[in-house]
Amino acid sequence: MGSDLIDELRRALGDAVSTDDGVREAARGDASGWRTDSPPDAVVHAASVADVQAVLRIASASGTPVVTRGAGTGLAGGANGCRGQIVLDTTRMDRVLEIDQANELAVVEPGVINDDLNRALAPHGLWYSPDPASKAISTIGGNIATGAGGLLCAKYGVTREAVLGLVVVLADGSLLRTGHRTVKGVTGYDLTALLTGSEGTLGVIVEATLRLRPAPRHEPVTIAAAYPDVESAAEGAAAVVRAHLRPAMLELLEPGGLARIRSFLGDAALAGTPLAAGAAPDGAAFLIAQSDGPEAAAEAAEVAAALASAGGSVALAADAAEGERLLAIRRSFHGALAASGEVLIEDVSVPRSQMPAMFREIARIADAHDLEIPTVAHAGDGNLHPNFVYSGDEVPERVWAAADELFRTAVALGGTLTGEHGVGVLKRRWLRDELGDAQEALQRRIKAAFDPAGILNPAAMFEPVA
Amino acid sequence: MGSDLIDELRRALGDAVSTDDGVREAARGDASGWRTDSPPDAVVHAASVADVQAVLRIASASGTPVVTRGAGTGLAGGANGCRGQIVLDTTRMDRVLEIDQANELAVVEPGVINDDLNRALAPHGLWYSPDPASKAISTIGGNIATGAGGLLCAKYGVTREAVLGLVVVLADGSLLRTGHRTVKGVTGYDLTALLTGSEGTLGVIVEATLRLRPAPRHEPVTIAAAYPDVESAAEGAAAVVRAHLRPAMLELLEPGGLARIRSFLGDAALAGTPLAAGAAPDGAAFLIAQSDGPEAAAEAAEVAAALASAGGSVALAADAAEGERLLAIRRSFHGALAASGEVLIEDVSVPRSQMPAMFREIARIADAHDLEIPTVAHAGDGNLHPNFVYSGDEVPERVWAAADELFRTAVALGGTLTGEHGVGVLKRRWLRDELGDAQEALQRRIKAAFDPAGILNPAAMFEPVA
Repeated sequence: MGSDLIDELRRALGDAVSTDDGVREAARGDASGWRTDSPPDAVVHAASVADVQAVLRIASASGTPVVTRGAGTGLAGGANGCRGQIVLDTTRMDRVLEIDQANELAVVEPGVINDDLNRALAPHGLWYSPDPASKAISTIGGNIATGAGGLLCAKYGVTREAVLGLVVVLADGSLLRTGHRTVKGVTGYDLTALLTGSEGTLGVIVEATLRLRPAPRHEPVTIAAAYPDVESAAEGAAAVVRAHLRPAMLELLEPGGLARIRSFLGDAALAGTPLAAGAAPDGAAFLIAQSDGPEAAAEAAEVAAALASAGGSVALAADAAEGERLLAIRRSFHGALAASGEVLIEDVSVPRSQMPAMFREIARIADAHDLEIPTVAHAGDGNLHPNFVYSGDEVPERVWAAADELFRTAVALGGTLTGEHGVGVLKRRWLRDELGDAQEALQRRIKAAFDPAGILNPAAMFEPVA
Repeated sequence: MGSDLIDELRRALGDAVSTDDGVREAARGDASGWRTDSPPDAVVHAASVADVQAVLRIASASGTPVVTRGAGTGLAGGANGCRGQIVLDTTRMDRVLEIDQANELAVVEPGVINDDLNRALAPHGLWYSPDPASKAISTIGGNIATGAGGLLCAKYGVTREAVLGLVVVLADGSLLRTGHRTVKGVTGYDLTALLTGSEGTLGVIVEATLRLRPAPRHEPVTIAAAYPDVESAAEGAAAVVRAHLRPAMLELLEPGGLARIRSFLGDAALAGTPLAAGAAPDGAAFLIAQSDGPEAAAEAAEVAAALASAGGSVALAADAAEGERLLAIRRSFHGALAASGEVLIEDVSVPRSQMPAMFREIARIADAHDLEIPTVAHAGDGNLHPNFVYSGDEVPERVWAAADELFRTAVALGGTLTGEHGVGVLKRRWLRDELGDAQEALQRRIKAAFDPAGILNPAAMFEPVA
């Protein structure tokens, strides 16, 4: 990109254009730890739809690639810019434009932080349910662009189900409005769903109409269970499903992850839980569930019975404070890993019934590559996060070799290489393994229907054409 | 289409190919009452994926249009064949291939009847929730192709949310597998969602993986309310939403529809209901709600209170039998209309808060065109079915003129010209009014990415290119 282009951006967007070294450096990376080999030429901090349109018009006229970026909390390298590219940062577009009580929807700009939206909704008795683990720091625009999941999806659905409509700036700078302010609507193809999870490759989300739910009116009830091994914990999760129970949350920590949490938190933090010193042996696994809604207490009792039937040592939290103490064990997982090195967080999904098989495969792959792969799973929906802990600036090749086996195994078990993080740059080399050549080619044709010049996030999702 | 092509179809598909006059005649129409101007050249009754592939290969090689058809219960003329076309009937592909309890999913062929699937699921304690009014006679393949809605969608979601994956035969006869056996999965663009509601224009659905729910374990509770006019009934529905209640069902009958039901059923059938002779004046409107789930009784009491707060004369059914009697009033709506003439059933959606405005507009349009437009609404999600009753074989021009105003009004109120029936042939001339020229062009490019020769249901959704 020449200085002419920077000048043109400056004329159109003034101070919103940054060529500051620190700003450009930051835009090389995301929360995956992966960085591009060079900083982008400029970062534009768009504050309005018109700003986004101006960037896309200039980029389109000059054939300059644009990488759209929210809070940078992605885990697949999907929003990382490099030399010759503009990074389009939408975090300043952070207004909640409308909260519509009668229609249970909100209209937001893309830079609104997920938790901030819920803080704004609370006084209205409304709730936006998609809850990626990053919700305190990630943006709604990024959540939609990646099709983010979370802990509550098995019961409350994924991001796609919560997006009613979008306003998107296309590659040429024009505006596309999709969807409706209604739950139903089947006029033409469902571009709202197509754009959700499209990782900035089809257009730039500048506004979203979100479907809300009444805020929960009842205190949730938390249940925790320790198991002698991961197979019996997975069996506990299966028993919950067999009993036709659908707790809001059902999280599984396998022994490797649990051991790190125990040494990270120390015995005192675990006193009084099923993981108290002496209560759970080495190699123990941990399940934590939460029931909500009007029958939370009754459902929790049924969940506890199902967990016990699989051999779990079960504790039912007496109150919300005790529930929070149990949940804190789960929440400390990533802190415990980060304390011991760099972490590559993976994100496969398999049919729930295949979770025991996937855990066996993870153990086998860890052995074969002489690695530890501490893992947490959203057991209610079969989404596992196997984590690789390593040292140094770069992900070692043997970690990628192990990840390669992991992805292929998940697909072979009827699952997918990414449940909720996206393909980005880091997983694009496995896209064809999952989709097949013909579907990959069809998906490229869809990309071309939106972005014929290929300027939108060209490094993400698809391998470069040789 | 020449006799050569029929011969080729016969060589590949034998007796599955019908050129019988009666069979071809039946394939001209659907439940909308609209018929094409000529029968298709052949109807192929596919019994297998291989049959569908054979048809598409032959059609593709010869450039012959193919119209895929399920039970023919569509209301938009989207599965009606004409001269020069093959109608591909998938109703013989009617096997439930798998019921997977552990993963709460079913794999079905497209010709399975919606109610038959639920009959097969019941012994497993599972339930497929999308419930188009035609569920006793319509196929899952057709439900997916139209993105069918139903009465329970506000609480349980539309068809798109219940489809996890598809197997589709593309125009060239190749197979495309989309989605996963998991709730989560964000590898590449969401083609499962894109194909849902695509009305046979992108591919032919030959298998679907469906997301199931635990079957309801509690008796639902039915609530009915009569109001002096439609505005206060709409206000009753709004009061339910304001109270953050989400009954499974919330149906509204406006005075014109209600009057026809009263004369159709007679006073005896309404005795003991809020519509009993003398209890509700002329011009009265009717709301019927149903609460389900573990707190059905408590929720129903809250719903009843909300309905009463808006001036409704409310009856809470004492038991399931009484609930069924109240529901029968709603269910007799289409029978009552059909008894008085031909019926064109329309299907607009508006934001729930705009229902009173939409009812006012329907009354105005009816007056202006000297028509009656008896209407029922799924009030929980703002989906209205205004019905035109007419006589004769053809929909009169003034009915289409009134429908034109209806569609434009719904779009202007923030809604859509079709909530759950699809665009088909009958509404394609309004597609551009809703989507705009640029989006319509983009949608045509997506169609071309799947079906470059344009042989799949070419008359549906888009206007012919001049």
